[in-house]
Amino acid sequence: MGVEIERKFLVDHEKWHQLEKPAGVHYQQGYILNDNNRTVRVRITDTQGYITLKGSGTSHMSRAEYEYEIPLKDGRELLKEFTKNGTEKTRYRIPYDGFTWEVDEFLGDNKGLIVAEIELEDEHDEFEKPYWVTKEVTDDARYFNSNLAVHPFKDWD
Amino acid sequence: MGVEIERKFLVDHEKWHQLEKPAGVHYQQGYILNDNNRTVRVRITDTQGYITLKGSGTSHMSRAEYEYEIPLKDGRELLKEFTKNGTEKTRYRIPYDGFTWEVDEFLGDNKGLIVAEIELEDEHDEFEKPYWVTKEVTDDARYFNSNLAVHPFKDWD
Repeated sequence: MGVEIERKFLVDHEKWHQLEKPAGVHYQQGYILNDNNRTVRVRITDTQGYITLKGSGTSHMSRAEYEYEIPLKDGRELLKEFTKNGTEKTRYRIPYDGFTWEVDEFLGDNKGLIVAEIELEDEHDEFEKPYWVTKEVTDDARYFNSNLAVHPFKDWD
Repeated sequence: MGVEIERKFLVDHEKWHQLEKPAGVHYQQGYILNDNNRTVRVRITDTQGYITLKGSGTSHMSRAEYEYEIPLKDGRELLKEFTKNGTEKTRYRIPYDGFTWEVDEFLGDNKGLIVAEIELEDEHDEFEKPYWVTKEVTDDARYFNSNLAVHPFKDWD
């Protein structure tokens, strides 16, 4: 197991789009199970499948996470046969001040949403916020990927 | 993916216990998800963990199955943190007339139950029943491992 400690922020779209950045990776993902305590997620990139189990955490910042690589073909089949709702996004990995930020530009029904996450070793780790990062939304359930799959950004008020 | 085609039978306990057989493997397993259409199962032996996803099939005989090896340590943690009900059994693999039978001697709340399964290539495959096999229970939902986890043999009428 790993424990995943993450903080999540909104992004200033204009500054973000002006940023020079490496190519992103296309992700398609769906949930086989998605309740308050546990999620089972299938994800595919263009070359690899993954199955990821996340437990309940002490907070939304910190959750047990188990991730396994699976064949891309299995991932495609599982997405189709085992999941109903999903999300699609391009993920960029941006090094900044000794940390790596993962920035997700959502597609499909969540198009228009851009979210930046930083993974920490410890909940109390201090870090420098990049200038293109704005409000923290770590504890805002609407932004959980598992919720975006069923209540996408296009349906928000 | 594989498609799992199985037929399941009860066992004559006396004949079974008199049979000379190779050592069995101890299995402990539980369900992260268990609805009519999909199951997500965690299983551990003494040396290896597994995560297995099964879809709905055209019948109880035939279901899509995806199985992945995971570290034993992860399997133990997932059983503890992600599953509530489980089953425990010793599995014996018995070659017979060109097929391999898997015979499960259940433990714990299902102690007293012994079930034999044969895995087929095709639903119409013909095979010889060993002399220690009795009634077929392939379509009897009580014997599904996923049901034995929540309605164990000791609670049956």
